Amino acid sequence: MTGDAHPMWLPDAAFRAVGSRRVLLAASTEDVVVDTVRDEVRRATTRWGGRFDEGATSAGHDLLLTVDVGLEEGEYVVDRADGATRVAAGSSAALLHGLHHVVRGGEDAFDGPDGVERQRPAQRIRMLDHWDNVDVHDVMGQVERGYSGGSIFYDAGCLRDDLSRAQEYARLLGSVGINAVGLNNVNVHRTEARLLMDRLPDVVRLAEVFRPHGIRVYLSVSFAAPMTLGGLPSSDPLDPTVQAWWSARAADVYRAVPDFGGFVVKADSEGQPGPFAYGRDHADGANMLARALAPFGGTVFWRAFVYNHTQDWRDRSTDRARAAHEHFAPLDGRFDANVVVQVKYGPMDFQTREPVSPVIAAMGRTRLALELQVTQEYTGQQQHAVWLGPQWAQILSFRLLGPGGPTVAEIAGGLVAVSNVGSDEFWTGHPLAQANLYTFARLAWAPDADVAAILDEWIGLTFSGPDGSPVDPVVRDSLHAILDDSWRTYEQYTAPLGVGFMVRPGHHYGPDVNGYEYTPWGTYHFADRDGVGVDRTRATGTGYTGQYPGPWSDLYESLDTVPDELLLFFHHVPYGHVLHDGTTVIQHIYDTHFAGAARTEDFAKAWTSVEGRVPEALYARVADRLAEQVRCAHEWRDQVNTYFRRSSGVPDGRGRRIF
Amino acid sequence: MTGDAHPMWLPDAAFRAVGSRRVLLAASTEDVVVDTVRDEVRRATTRWGGRFDEGATSAGHDLLLTVDVGLEEGEYVVDRADGATRVAAGSSAALLHGLHHVVRGGEDAFDGPDGVERQRPAQRIRMLDHWDNVDVHDVMGQVERGYSGGSIFYDAGCLRDDLSRAQEYARLLGSVGINAVGLNNVNVHRTEARLLMDRLPDVVRLAEVFRPHGIRVYLSVSFAAPMTLGGLPSSDPLDPTVQAWWSARAADVYRAVPDFGGFVVKADSEGQPGPFAYGRDHADGANMLARALAPFGGTVFWRAFVYNHTQDWRDRSTDRARAAHEHFAPLDGRFDANVVVQVKYGPMDFQTREPVSPVIAAMGRTRLALELQVTQEYTGQQQHAVWLGPQWAQILSFRLLGPGGPTVAEIAGGLVAVSNVGSDEFWTGHPLAQANLYTFARLAWAPDADVAAILDEWIGLTFSGPDGSPVDPVVRDSLHAILDDSWRTYEQYTAPLGVGFMVRPGHHYGPDVNGYEYTPWGTYHFADRDGVGVDRTRATGTGYTGQYPGPWSDLYESLDTVPDELLLFFHHVPYGHVLHDGTTVIQHIYDTHFAGAARTEDFAKAWTSVEGRVPEALYARVADRLAEQVRCAHEWRDQVNTYFRRSSGVPDGRGRRIF
Repeated sequence: MTGDAHPMWLPDAAFRAVGSRRVLLAASTEDVVVDTVRDEVRRATTRWGGRFDEGATSAGHDLLLTVDVGLEEGEYVVDRADGATRVAAGSSAALLHGLHHVVRGGEDAFDGPDGVERQRPAQRIRMLDHWDNVDVHDVMGQVERGYSGGSIFYDAGCLRDDLSRAQEYARLLGSVGINAVGLNNVNVHRTEARLLMDRLPDVVRLAEVFRPHGIRVYLSVSFAAPMTLGGLPSSDPLDPTVQAWWSARAADVYRAVPDFGGFVVKADSEGQPGPFAYGRDHADGANMLARALAPFGGTVFWRAFVYNHTQDWRDRSTDRARAAHEHFAPLDGRFDANVVVQVKYGPMDFQTREPVSPVIAAMGRTRLALELQVTQEYTGQQQHAVWLGPQWAQILSFRLLGPGGPTVAEIAGGLVAVSNVGSDEFWTGHPLAQANLYTFARLAWAPDADVAAILDEWIGLTFSGPDGSPVDPVVRDSLHAILDDSWRTYEQYTAPLGVGFMVRPGHHYGPDVNGYEYTPWGTYHFADRDGVGVDRTRATGTGYTGQYPGPWSDLYESLDTVPDELLLFFHHVPYGHVLHDGTTVIQHIYDTHFAGAARTEDFAKAWTSVEGRVPEALYARVADRLAEQVRCAHEWRDQVNTYFRRSSGVPDGRGRRIF
Repeated sequence: MTGDAHPMWLPDAAFRAVGSRRVLLAASTEDVVVDTVRDEVRRATTRWGGRFDEGATSAGHDLLLTVDVGLEEGEYVVDRADGATRVAAGSSAALLHGLHHVVRGGEDAFDGPDGVERQRPAQRIRMLDHWDNVDVHDVMGQVERGYSGGSIFYDAGCLRDDLSRAQEYARLLGSVGINAVGLNNVNVHRTEARLLMDRLPDVVRLAEVFRPHGIRVYLSVSFAAPMTLGGLPSSDPLDPTVQAWWSARAADVYRAVPDFGGFVVKADSEGQPGPFAYGRDHADGANMLARALAPFGGTVFWRAFVYNHTQDWRDRSTDRARAAHEHFAPLDGRFDANVVVQVKYGPMDFQTREPVSPVIAAMGRTRLALELQVTQEYTGQQQHAVWLGPQWAQILSFRLLGPGGPTVAEIAGGLVAVSNVGSDEFWTGHPLAQANLYTFARLAWAPDADVAAILDEWIGLTFSGPDGSPVDPVVRDSLHAILDDSWRTYEQYTAPLGVGFMVRPGHHYGPDVNGYEYTPWGTYHFADRDGVGVDRTRATGTGYTGQYPGPWSDLYESLDTVPDELLLFFHHVPYGHVLHDGTTVIQHIYDTHFAGAARTEDFAKAWTSVEGRVPEALYARVADRLAEQVRCAHEWRDQVNTYFRRSSGVPDGRGRRIF
């Protein structure tokens, strides 16, 4: 692992405005998070020639940092008046967030107009899950679906001795308000299960890494642990000896880590054990763990990602998209208060385009968290520049209960995502994938923020000059040219009209139109010589549309009203079906694939303009990845177009070359 | 590894006829092979109450075993007269082969009519290659394309201490006339390359295992070894320092193993290094190694399996089938006398059905060996009962130069195959796959033998009663019912009309119609909504038919004369194309897939009749494998039929269910 990693959005330069000011820290409480605030300010003022004082009285300070217990725990107020900026925060963590709010503001934080701004996180839970394995897994490696080198926590079976990268990561996350981190893969293997037992000292050390940044740590646990670790004959959640075993484990963990967050559970899913083995349901399972954690204030994140992964492809009646709703909607109201049901944003699995999961509308009496995927499993694996901000913003602002109802962000009580970092020197493999991590955290704080502004903010922090000068406009323009519409570009050359999973089985990179068509995974497009798509209507299909509340239920049901971008997710149509823009489905497939592949060439070209304006190593890395994106996008274009040309027999209306 | 392995075709019972006789060994020479003959006879007579003598004079013996240097080295003569059977052999190895000839004959060898039978092997080289790795390979495991457990030679990076299974294997091979064994994978990795250097003592030990059975050992070597092992700056075959390096290696090897066989080389193939890197051709490469071996009487087996494995699927002009001929035919006449060019039976890669490779017709001035694949990589991986005897017999008897010309067996100077054994207690995973190993060896000796008789012979030896009583007729009938037509059955449910490679990429097991369609491997079927197959004609296709001599060149070229079973190998035709039997291509696909899958149910049913008549463990193992075969055959049936139903739009003419 490179010791000297890229600073992401916290280069020294980002602290110039604060660091060149006179800063007073007047914290009425003392804890390790206040220590972090103190360290940040001291470092910044030392670097940039400002002044740092502590104490109750201000005399000629430009920035005052205070804790005000009268405020809500998570909130902070920034008050600019009389030439001074004052941050009052409801807690030490909020003070850290407030400090970074000022850092992000730069000179504007001091020179802007007077006024009061109150900041309060929209999501109480702002969490990153790490699918890191302690032992290198035979197939999945050190980090499952990790595209950024090794784990920053573990190396070949052990917690790293040197946790400096983890510390830097914790600092980065704390700066943007992340307050929870899952420490291990939701697929819990043998060694990882022992984090709960004899490897608990590893958890203690990681908790010490994250605590100074206002972040609690969580463990993914195996539902079978009472048997595999505890030697009990069963893991039945209604068995008192099983309950007692979990209670003892919770007590152990909290003795070692008093501010431990809780458990993350993937149960009865893709081979992981769960309550079904005992004829119990997922409320039984989740509540058992919740009751073990409750005395200590802990929380269970129980994933709703439950479906039959040994489906027979011949069976057209089973629909994986329906599974989570079928399993969880009937349980609404039965989960304890410290259970959070964690729902993937779509009904399938982090595809480039899916409708929002109807589970989110069906659990009014349950605490929910929305799960996103920052690691780009199905969106280019950090080989492709794909900024997911627009996708997430669209999901978060979606009014699932109808136009007058709340947004998905308003329904959810938390936002969780699989992280994309690793031991890579740029953290994320593709340096521009840092923008996804940043955007996720900022949207978790403020889901209704303008994502374009978030991207711009990230650019400003990450690409400012070493002397703190503003980012070179050429660099800024180039990054916008590449990233702004990169998600839709990726959609263009990969996943037409809501079709997903046309990827190589196993690793999920690159095209394979029929790769998942005859597998047990429930992921089909049903393309034949006449048409393509999955009929999920109530009238003639799997009935999935019926899981939605109105108006979506009817809107998705009808060919007249279903949005084009989800057409093939909900309907099987002939290739000649005409979209709302007047194009046929087959011509749309051709057009978008030609267009998307061509746009990747524009991306690569746009990047050449920044040569010499960004550090050489970063330039080269991005250039290499863009070249791979161009290659792979053309492979997608040709395979998808050829497949559908062969199937449909329809030539391209514009006479372009299809092989 | 199980110590107590199945005896294959050499159970004690098979020796009853010989063992109950009075046997005289009168060998005029003494060597370790004569020791083997002595041990076999002594063991048999001890077990079955006969008598064993040595010496020049016969008095009342039923069987006389003698070496007669007046005979050719490889031949033996069996002479039955005056109530005694006399075996005279040209060498100690031939004497061993003659003894086993008598063993196979059983009581008939003694009670049959008087007469003289002269046996001489049709193929001078009768070789089994082992794709065994010393180190377990990350992807390919201990044995590449091995389906029978671990290697009987190596275990986790080392030669086994206990070579008793290898000894038993050598005995089995010697009994059926195999005279050459390749000790390591043709894909030569780091550790395996060192068998030539510091691991040479391992080769010495293995040579000692095989020598008593008349078998020479060979090593697969890496063309890059002068660089990777020798530290030279090049492996250029025309570089004198490279030539000197190889000469020194050959001298080292022969000092340690005076009867060492030679080298096996996969060069410029699927990533292996070769002479192309230096602008040299394969004659240059092979001759360099041949000249290093020549002073010691060694031979180079140089594989003709050379093609572009990074082909662009968009390129319809490149044809992998043409590659070997294009590379090798121009080199005919340039290979040294101790080079054997080893040619796979078909132009692709051991598919269920391919035409015979035209390379075999194109190298009249070159020593050739035909390569078969006993390990069932593409023919069911020893999960499926597929007896390959009929395929091999068809290939060996094929008159590639026309009706009046020689057979493939007559052109080839040797027969080589990849072995199918491993540490499994039944040696071959599927116990019935032992028949393939047996059949290969017997065909190598006598390619024109009746394969049905060979199978029957194998049944008789393997399934005789423990007391030497003849095989139970129920068992014999059941085995014939399963195996006789098993190859064609496998073809029915997998590979219609010469289409290959519709398997899951990587492991090659189970169906995936489009799995290789858009890959770099050059293995395509070009199915679209209108038709399927590869146009390899001269008139409109890749021109591959032009590599054949007449009459095949024209016969394959014409839709009127191409055999149905190779139709799609040579032609791209509409689904409605009518076969010689009056069926359309699409209906043929449906019919054969329904029929083939149904026949596997017959196999499973036939096996149930032998319960209690064969050892329980063997019964259970075969029953398990047949159940898997039934399952997998139905998966093949449904995926292939559904794929072509969706593509063609043509319903089954008999109204059966296609999903």
